[in-house]
Amino acid sequence: MSTSAPSLAAPALREGAFGNAVELVCRECGTTRELGPHYVCAECFGPLEIRYDFPAITREQIAAGPNNIWRYKALLPVPDDIELSPNLEPGFTRLLKADNLAAELGLKNLWVKDDSTNPTNSFKDRVVACALSAAREFGSKVFACPSTGNLANAVAAAGARAGIKTVVFIPSNLETPKQVNSAVYTENLVAVDGNYDDVNKLASEIAGEQDGWAFVNVNVRPFYAEGSKTLGYEIAEQLGWRLPDQIVIPVASGSQLTKVHKSFKELIALGLVEDKPYKVFGAQATGCSPVSEAFREGWDVVRPVRPDTIAKSLAIGNPADGVYVLDICRETGGAIADISDDEVRDAIVLLARTEGIFTETAGGTTVGVLKKLVETGQLDPELETVVINTGHGLKTLDAVTDLVGPAATIAPTYEAFVASGIA
Amino acid sequence: MSTSAPSLAAPALREGAFGNAVELVCRECGTTRELGPHYVCAECFGPLEIRYDFPAITREQIAAGPNNIWRYKALLPVPDDIELSPNLEPGFTRLLKADNLAAELGLKNLWVKDDSTNPTNSFKDRVVACALSAAREFGSKVFACPSTGNLANAVAAAGARAGIKTVVFIPSNLETPKQVNSAVYTENLVAVDGNYDDVNKLASEIAGEQDGWAFVNVNVRPFYAEGSKTLGYEIAEQLGWRLPDQIVIPVASGSQLTKVHKSFKELIALGLVEDKPYKVFGAQATGCSPVSEAFREGWDVVRPVRPDTIAKSLAIGNPADGVYVLDICRETGGAIADISDDEVRDAIVLLARTEGIFTETAGGTTVGVLKKLVETGQLDPELETVVINTGHGLKTLDAVTDLVGPAATIAPTYEAFVASGIA
Ligand SMILES: Cc1ncc(COP(=O)(O)O)c(C=O)c1O
Ligand SMILES: Cc1ncc(COP(=O)(O)O)c(C=O)c1O
Ligand SMILES: [Zn+2]
Ligand SMILES: [Zn+2]
Repeated sequence: MSTSAPSLAAPALREGAFGNAVELVCRECGTTRELGPHYVCAECFGPLEIRYDFPAITREQIAAGPNNIWRYKALLPVPDDIELSPNLEPGFTRLLKADNLAAELGLKNLWVKDDSTNPTNSFKDRVVACALSAAREFGSKVFACPSTGNLANAVAAAGARAGIKTVVFIPSNLETPKQVNSAVYTENLVAVDGNYDDVNKLASEIAGEQDGWAFVNVNVRPFYAEGSKTLGYEIAEQLGWRLPDQIVIPVASGSQLTKVHKSFKELIALGLVEDKPYKVFGAQATGCSPVSEAFREGWDVVRPVRPDTIAKSLAIGNPADGVYVLDICRETGGAIADISDDEVRDAIVLLARTEGIFTETAGGTTVGVLKKLVETGQLDPELETVVINTGHGLKTLDAVTDLVGPAATIAPTYEAFVASGIA
Repeated sequence: MSTSAPSLAAPALREGAFGNAVELVCRECGTTRELGPHYVCAECFGPLEIRYDFPAITREQIAAGPNNIWRYKALLPVPDDIELSPNLEPGFTRLLKADNLAAELGLKNLWVKDDSTNPTNSFKDRVVACALSAAREFGSKVFACPSTGNLANAVAAAGARAGIKTVVFIPSNLETPKQVNSAVYTENLVAVDGNYDDVNKLASEIAGEQDGWAFVNVNVRPFYAEGSKTLGYEIAEQLGWRLPDQIVIPVASGSQLTKVHKSFKELIALGLVEDKPYKVFGAQATGCSPVSEAFREGWDVVRPVRPDTIAKSLAIGNPADGVYVLDICRETGGAIADISDDEVRDAIVLLARTEGIFTETAGGTTVGVLKKLVETGQLDPELETVVINTGHGLKTLDAVTDLVGPAATIAPTYEAFVASGIA
């Protein structure tokens, strides 16, 4: 494994290309490095993260920004004029009070952060928007990713709008909607015979060999990952600049969960919200639950698994940030749990019937795990809770096609209607 | 045909139930009537519309409202506390500068208003939110609709969140995604063997017979239709409180087009934008183009047709507001045009590849008609133009499944990647 990405030419970075970001720092050993298309520590092979030097940032300043993630641009590794570059303008999605679902689950105070209404219908538009900015600043020629589906949609769409060549790699067994939803944006959808972990490995190899390829979640991963922080910022702002007591987040690679946690810590450090304890919970599907397993067993490491679940967008058997997810959930007093595919399906219908939100299997996993955590007593039903819906049910229709359908098929007459018994 | 809706019990309306709305007025003969679940004029059977008595309304007041259609609540027939009632919080969707598409079509200044990111992924969430408020104020027991698909999605979802029983009627040949996307929210999806016009007729019958059924686009249609005005308000506000020179809008029943026009006139009358000429254009698919035909032929009436097009959400052969669409397009100097199903498909891919927006067949129709209007010289390429994307491509996947797909399927090795020729 190479320690940097030779694939991206040493860039002549323009002043302010990364906003308030100042350097990369190794999450394991703390070694620092200049901002660039690097993602692993030269000393210990640990993952690199962005470090910032934040000026004072006010709520008013943020509120005056656009109705998308760029309102938080001062907190992201992007230039100050980021809104001017063609992008999908993701984020600032709805935070919905979910009283019906709360009643159903026996919770007192529940919110759903609904990222299914992002431009390509998943939270991935957030991370990709940040990766796109980095790729632009690095002068990349190709915008690429290995993906479990949603990421490919987001990369292909964002690249189309930005006018940069895209190449997206997916497991060849992916759901048709997610395939078409990428292919409609790009000529270069590549289906790979293998699971996500195989696709990911291939992407790392290509990143190491090809010049000017920005793989959003490989060689520009430190920049990409920061995009998930905006989920946390929005939740806090939409709650009236306040942190929730408990938050439930799906876990694939574990990046999102770690970044939402990071966002909360940043808001506290910047004085944008009051300091308070909060618990972070992770959600997995049993068929791919290496982090949940490690949590349950009390392990400090995550043992890779071979995924077998309908929650394909979460089907990462060897999660890059798994150990950090463990740390965060343990530190904050949260937990990680997993549920069966049938529980995932039921939770999709439950969320739709109670709140009018149609989620994909990832959201079914998260809502189903929320239900389970209440039942096991790991989550306190009295405390204010946020559950994140990260994707859209139209992408995983097959999951519920057997569960729901027309109540009746009738002739177009009033008599047929009455006979149907619907009235 | 009954002139009012006996199906809704004479309601004891609360003070302020309809905001600044004061009465219903016949679009044909001007006869007025008190606000209530009425939709046809007792004198001439013309359609009833809402009349308001607006106070002064400022830009600041609107800007201080929520990031959804309720920021315009003073301009809608809804109570002042409308945000507090559980609803899907639709609207305030992106207005995207579309420079790539503009270049492709030879336009100078083009925007896409993208309503595919509404809660149930079409503009119907706007109208349904207003109909829901009316149904609530009327004390309706059932929230219902006949639908070409999108409306059923929106009614079923909004009703679930509001905790009101929903019954939605669709043609039984509707695309599976739209069927599932309704059935996931409601137990009462009713498939009707017939086309939309048959379903619509059945709904009118039921509305006339059943007590307490609010059919959003039948007996509460005057309230429902007002929701489409928010598309126009948002476009003006997002342009910086300015009207565009030209706007292209899809036409099914014609309701949306007439209401966007109404919204522009209201903004001018209220002094919220400067008065200026603008041209309104309508878009239909050739397989269901009765309004386009009437425009071309110079008729004052619209001759019903039997729809046969992949643009099923626009497949209304007997459009209730067709003649008003004709009037508006003629008056403003616009036009109505239609394109073939193949042109619809191509336009879907064009929009995706240029702007990263995946639209359904309705949006394909609108973008394709925009292209045609430029080619025929009916639309001025020098003027500022807005095209409305009203729905999401994930709902009509089949339309493009044959057009796009993986460029290659490869083994998970670098050699296979190189051999694929993608690099
Ligand atoms: C819909 C959805 N939710 C959640 C996740 C989890 O993301 P992460 O890899 O950051 O844990 C993914 C990842 O692909 C996803 O597609
Ligand atoms: C996606 C979409 N766009 C546009 C329309 C046209 O609406 P109207 O009936 O107001 O003309 C519809 C109507 O069903 C629709 O579903
Ligand atoms: Zn290190
Ligand atoms: Zn009349």
